[in-house]
Amino acid sequence: MSETCVENDDRFEVNCDGINIIRTLSVESMLKPVSTVDSALLILNQEIAIGPLFLKLWSQYDLIVCADGGANRLFNYFKEDELQRQKYIPDYIIGDFDSLDLDVKHYYQNAGVVTIKQSSQYSTDFTKCAHLISLHFNLPDFKLMLKSSDVSENHGIEGEKGIHTLYYQMKEQHDSKQFNKISLLALGGIDGRFDQTIHSITQFYTLEKSDPYIDLYYLTPTDIIFMVQAGGILLTYPTLFRDTCIGNCGVLPIAAPSEIIESRGLKWDVSNWKTSITTGQVSSSNRFAGFNKCYINVKENVIMNIEIKLQNLTNNI
Amino acid sequence: MSETCVENDDRFEVNCDGINIIRTLSVESMLKPVSTVDSALLILNQEIAIGPLFLKLWSQYDLIVCADGGANRLFNYFKEDELQRQKYIPDYIIGDFDSLDLDVKHYYQNAGVVTIKQSSQYSTDFTKCAHLISLHFNLPDFKLMLKSSDVSENHGIEGEKGIHTLYYQMKEQHDSKQFNKISLLALGGIDGRFDQTIHSITQFYTLEKSDPYIDLYYLTPTDIIFMVQAGGILLTYPTLFRDTCIGNCGVLPIAAPSEIIESRGLKWDVSNWKTSITTGQVSSSNRFAGFNKCYINVKENVIMNIEIKLQNLTNNI
Repeated sequence: MSETCVENDDRFEVNCDGINIIRTLSVESMLKPVSTVDSALLILNQEIAIGPLFLKLWSQYDLIVCADGGANRLFNYFKEDELQRQKYIPDYIIGDFDSLDLDVKHYYQNAGVVTIKQSSQYSTDFTKCAHLISLHFNLPDFKLMLKSSDVSENHGIEGEKGIHTLYYQMKEQHDSKQFNKISLLALGGIDGRFDQTIHSITQFYTLEKSDPYIDLYYLTPTDIIFMVQAGGILLTYPTLFRDTCIGNCGVLPIAAPSEIIESRGLKWDVSNWKTSITTGQVSSSNRFAGFNKCYINVKENVIMNIEIKLQNLTNNI
Repeated sequence: MSETCVENDDRFEVNCDGINIIRTLSVESMLKPVSTVDSALLILNQEIAIGPLFLKLWSQYDLIVCADGGANRLFNYFKEDELQRQKYIPDYIIGDFDSLDLDVKHYYQNAGVVTIKQSSQYSTDFTKCAHLISLHFNLPDFKLMLKSSDVSENHGIEGEKGIHTLYYQMKEQHDSKQFNKISLLALGGIDGRFDQTIHSITQFYTLEKSDPYIDLYYLTPTDIIFMVQAGGILLTYPTLFRDTCIGNCGVLPIAAPSEIIESRGLKWDVSNWKTSITTGQVSSSNRFAGFNKCYINVKENVIMNIEIKLQNLTNNI
């Protein structure tokens, strides 16, 4: 089938007739999860660079987790404002603690944060966090178990890889297909060291296989980044949100070539469009033109980024 | 053949017996090109975030090019220091000029910078720059031609896509296999909007096909990023440089899966090691352990990043 590429008007009504939709994703809910899902905000070890938006996001999430030095970043975000710092206490800090500042650790331990040391060098801080988050929401007695031990006993969790052991036990004993959806927003996974950025991208693929009930999003000062699975995704957004809070977008065949079978709602819509970093045929600097929706059907999973207008988003979220 | 992964000592002597090397690359020369190559520093449209290192790099390059709003970034780098600003005048500004600040344009025009407007929306600022750089070094009468027209005539270059026309004419009339190597260091190609980052990565593949005499490197505050071509690359570095100026590294199959046939000189060396973002088997947070060299032989081209210690590099480059 031959490739097509059309340039649309800046705004138009998207016609959804005859398209196959495996999932509808609300762009706003990537940052404001709906109440019917479980939700977690994960702070990785990079400066929190999204300004006041960070504090507005905090209240949207059921659970706040710091990955090791992410707790330093949280602590330092408030600079000299101790009153504010006290209001934003995470639920967990987990990692091998090679980055976590001792004073920061004690500060949050005194504030009641559950700090779980996991020394294993065979898993990353991210994976430790993902397993912890899943246990928190899905293992019935997990929180009780933590309460019945204290920090001197690592909250009852074996210190090398106990969180993974618990997680795998849980997966054996419980049907993860019954797990509630978890919306996981991670800060600090992109824009640092480039191999860490790519490692963050691998997490989309890893979680899709191991924990498909987790929807992972990365937020940076410039983008929301997420996976668009093969089979037909309908992205929705309020018209005003589109006009004020988001901008350009890219459909990015990171990991392997793909094909955009059809898009409806981009400024430049395509069909039967092979896309590959190797050939350079990549839809970058595109944008949403559909008034309130955009359909993307890809053959193989791709990564998508949506540019955010940080200031407007901060004011309007 | 079965995969192997070994953990080496932190430093060891790499044995190069029996390995196939298609190219030796000096890591230092990625930022300090040798005099036998032509060299260009390309400033893309992102804040120059590498601090004083920027000024030290400037003097290492034959040619300085600003891509459109990259000239704003150059201008603003010097803040209120007009004396310094006057010392760092680029050779060219090229692009569609939708980002270039009018005052900045006039400032540099008055300082003698050749400003070439190219309005075509079918090529990116990067491609306009790449073609310009190639013309500058490889077309015998190019600089003369520019001198014989002035800015009011766009320096004699047709205003929509004249630079591309000239470039293709040059490729027809001259054997590009005879072109001298060009070492091209680009600032601002990574760490901005994520689709722009991925677009920057596509340039490695694009240039490999269209202009293989150009060696492209991206520099960010955290990394040098470059392509490792298939067939066996020997990376070399002085021991002191390794110890003070660089750190972790990653071997990143961003466009498509690859295989590390063999590495010699990483902290974790591998062989017959399939690598893919989809499977998550990606060598990230690795590092150079060879005293002064590291060999990487991949089946398909990969991208590599080398972490830089910005402060030390600034002091020692």
